[in-house]
Amino acid sequence: MIKTPTTSFEENEVQLAKALAANDLAATSKVFHPLGVSESIEQLERLNTFDRALAYRTLPKDKAVEVFERLDASLQADLVSSLQEADVAEVFAELSPDDRVALLDELPASVANRLILGLNAKERALTSTVLGYSQGAVGRYMSPEFVITHPEMTATETLARVRAQLDDAESIYTIPVTDVGRRLVGVVSLRDVLRADPVAMVKDLMKKPISVPATLDVEEAARYCADAKVLVLPIVDAEERLVGILTVDDALQILEDAESEDAARSGGTEPLRRPYLATPVRSIVRARVVWLLVLALGATLTVKVIGTFEAALDEQVVLSLFIPLLIGTGGNTGNQAATTITRALALGDVRPRDVLKVFLREVRVGALLGLLLGALGFAISSLSFSVPIGLVIGLTLLGVCTMAASIGGMMPLLGKAVRADPAVFSNPFISTFVDATGLIIYFLIATSILGL
Amino acid sequence: MIKTPTTSFEENEVQLAKALAANDLAATSKVFHPLGVSESIEQLERLNTFDRALAYRTLPKDKAVEVFERLDASLQADLVSSLQEADVAEVFAELSPDDRVALLDELPASVANRLILGLNAKERALTSTVLGYSQGAVGRYMSPEFVITHPEMTATETLARVRAQLDDAESIYTIPVTDVGRRLVGVVSLRDVLRADPVAMVKDLMKKPISVPATLDVEEAARYCADAKVLVLPIVDAEERLVGILTVDDALQILEDAESEDAARSGGTEPLRRPYLATPVRSIVRARVVWLLVLALGATLTVKVIGTFEAALDEQVVLSLFIPLLIGTGGNTGNQAATTITRALALGDVRPRDVLKVFLREVRVGALLGLLLGALGFAISSLSFSVPIGLVIGLTLLGVCTMAASIGGMMPLLGKAVRADPAVFSNPFISTFVDATGLIIYFLIATSILGL
Repeated sequence: MIKTPTTSFEENEVQLAKALAANDLAATSKVFHPLGVSESIEQLERLNTFDRALAYRTLPKDKAVEVFERLDASLQADLVSSLQEADVAEVFAELSPDDRVALLDELPASVANRLILGLNAKERALTSTVLGYSQGAVGRYMSPEFVITHPEMTATETLARVRAQLDDAESIYTIPVTDVGRRLVGVVSLRDVLRADPVAMVKDLMKKPISVPATLDVEEAARYCADAKVLVLPIVDAEERLVGILTVDDALQILEDAESEDAARSGGTEPLRRPYLATPVRSIVRARVVWLLVLALGATLTVKVIGTFEAALDEQVVLSLFIPLLIGTGGNTGNQAATTITRALALGDVRPRDVLKVFLREVRVGALLGLLLGALGFAISSLSFSVPIGLVIGLTLLGVCTMAASIGGMMPLLGKAVRADPAVFSNPFISTFVDATGLIIYFLIATSILGL
Repeated sequence: MIKTPTTSFEENEVQLAKALAANDLAATSKVFHPLGVSESIEQLERLNTFDRALAYRTLPKDKAVEVFERLDASLQADLVSSLQEADVAEVFAELSPDDRVALLDELPASVANRLILGLNAKERALTSTVLGYSQGAVGRYMSPEFVITHPEMTATETLARVRAQLDDAESIYTIPVTDVGRRLVGVVSLRDVLRADPVAMVKDLMKKPISVPATLDVEEAARYCADAKVLVLPIVDAEERLVGILTVDDALQILEDAESEDAARSGGTEPLRRPYLATPVRSIVRARVVWLLVLALGATLTVKVIGTFEAALDEQVVLSLFIPLLIGTGGNTGNQAATTITRALALGDVRPRDVLKVFLREVRVGALLGLLLGALGFAISSLSFSVPIGLVIGLTLLGVCTMAASIGGMMPLLGKAVRADPAVFSNPFISTFVDATGLIIYFLIATSILGL
């Protein structure tokens, strides 16, 4: 049951903060003890690094392991540095190989090596398999512990195999089928194994496997797993031999992280590596300042553009009134297109090769939007100012919207084509570019219509 | 195996387009026949409504059902209107109750009613259970078909129950445990049932259940399922009686849709209901125009603000050069904060009650960013223009960044508090507000320093 609304969660938080401030471990433990694993994690995520370690150490052994397993790797790493070596080694051995590698990636090399050396031979071998793939490849996120069956085995034999490996395998509900050369030839669901005649052969029960190579980008693999609606995605090497599985819950976590990154980038900031309230202010500043500086430098272009037309502005100072409105509308139109295409790319709805299709559609969309806004802009500013001013505003809106939508729509595709994160080529970057271009359109139309 | 890179997919697309353009159903079928279900769906999503129906009808029966099940509800609805009534009824009966309701929501009432009447009594009852919950509640997305067991049953008896319901239950891998009053008292995994002593009692195998009420917002429920890393989330009514289950693959789909919506809203557009290339241009325009008009009307505020200071501008036209740079930087800073907080809200890392905490953090972040940018802005514009101008630019950057970060960070929280979509209160809305406020700061500082 979800805890009765927020009151209880908030009360726990307040009591926890009090107990921790007083350094009262007995009281901390008393608040923590009755909480479920999910709430314990949420509470831990809201504490600073020091209090988090303090609170974590009051957890009973079993719960501590479960909580640790489900924490972000960055917070796990924080905890490791404040726990006793012996405690860490124990929890570390309990993690599954893929989670272990995620934690290793966050730790200083010396600590990581000591932890690896503390594992038994089998766990160390499993960990190395995963560590062997490069960061960003799905091989690094897969689980190398799985049950397999063979085409010539019966349903009963398969079930016996599943029963024998209940404790180790990451998932037992979808069983990859391999031939003698360990090549993946099919998958069979535990459901079908249970349903089948006990002597039925696996080859008659199995389905065509879907699988991805271990070197594939992890986000693409996770998306593939989600789109195919499978609980388990088999991972194969270059010879189509089965090397691991990606489970749907890991795929979900990977997609969530990718989406946090996309959301951050399209807002012009680097993603935070920890939950917001657990991130120190200076880390937030660091995540934002580079982008902000780059964008501000880009915006000096607009200073140059307006400077070029300073004489025209000096003569008709009224023109400066519309600068924010016009470039704002351009920026908004560009953002809309960029947002739509970035998301469509992430979902696989459009591909980089669709660039011409997208361009033609966005030109039409932009022109239609420009006609509507331009007509309105013409009417309002003709009445408030003068017909020539109205004409300038109306035509500029038409031009700016068409330009902004088409550029905004193409940027994410170009970004993807040059293998950059499409979100980086997205909203703020476009705004800067569209601002300068929009101003040029504005002043060219203004000078020719008003004869400046 | 994922199809060998894009060539093959692109070739299929070209051949499909050719065959459809020639109205050649035999050729269409020849291209379509060898494709897997996933690629078939991707190809269908890229066609227009008419061609899609044409291509779909060439699919062999079994594959047609599987493809239909995995299409978006909006595309399913398009297909329904171009298929024969008899064909539709057959596919409709094959859908699971939750998918059926998603489709019904997209159809005109008359078609929906005819389809419901065509179901057998059992399927109709299951469908009504789901239809009974309001849109947006998890009850409407749950599956009412599940296996249950009881605390006093043995592992063997439970396994027999699972075997008996292999064909109907949506998931058999996590089994809810209920008491005589149908109240949820635990969950037991099929893995634990298989591992257990055959005569072990379920009450000794089961874990404490996590569940959510059927009236809970579907996005929150899906997030809960993802965070808890469970394959199945039991759904209960107000009396804690089990009424359905939410499976992890449905949760994933729900989170994807929610994220598409958030991404769209924070880019100032409504989400498209179909894949991009399957959406007509006029629908794209419709998704964007209202937002664009609202934002443009909001931006007329900036016209008013600058108008108020027209005399100052007339005297120092150089001030207009910096307008896009300054409001752009304010907009970017505000977007960064809003993006971070919107995402943190979606992930449950911050709650509306944290508004003061967020405000204080963002004031500090904004002031730090403003100091850095302001110092740089002062240096550059002192050299390029004059020290008083440099002072105006530097101080304005400090003020604008502090204001923008704090407003940007609070808006999503305020939005959430008044139960609006936080993303609606997000980036473009903030830009407009921050633009006007930023201009006021700019001109107040300029007029007092330059003595205008």
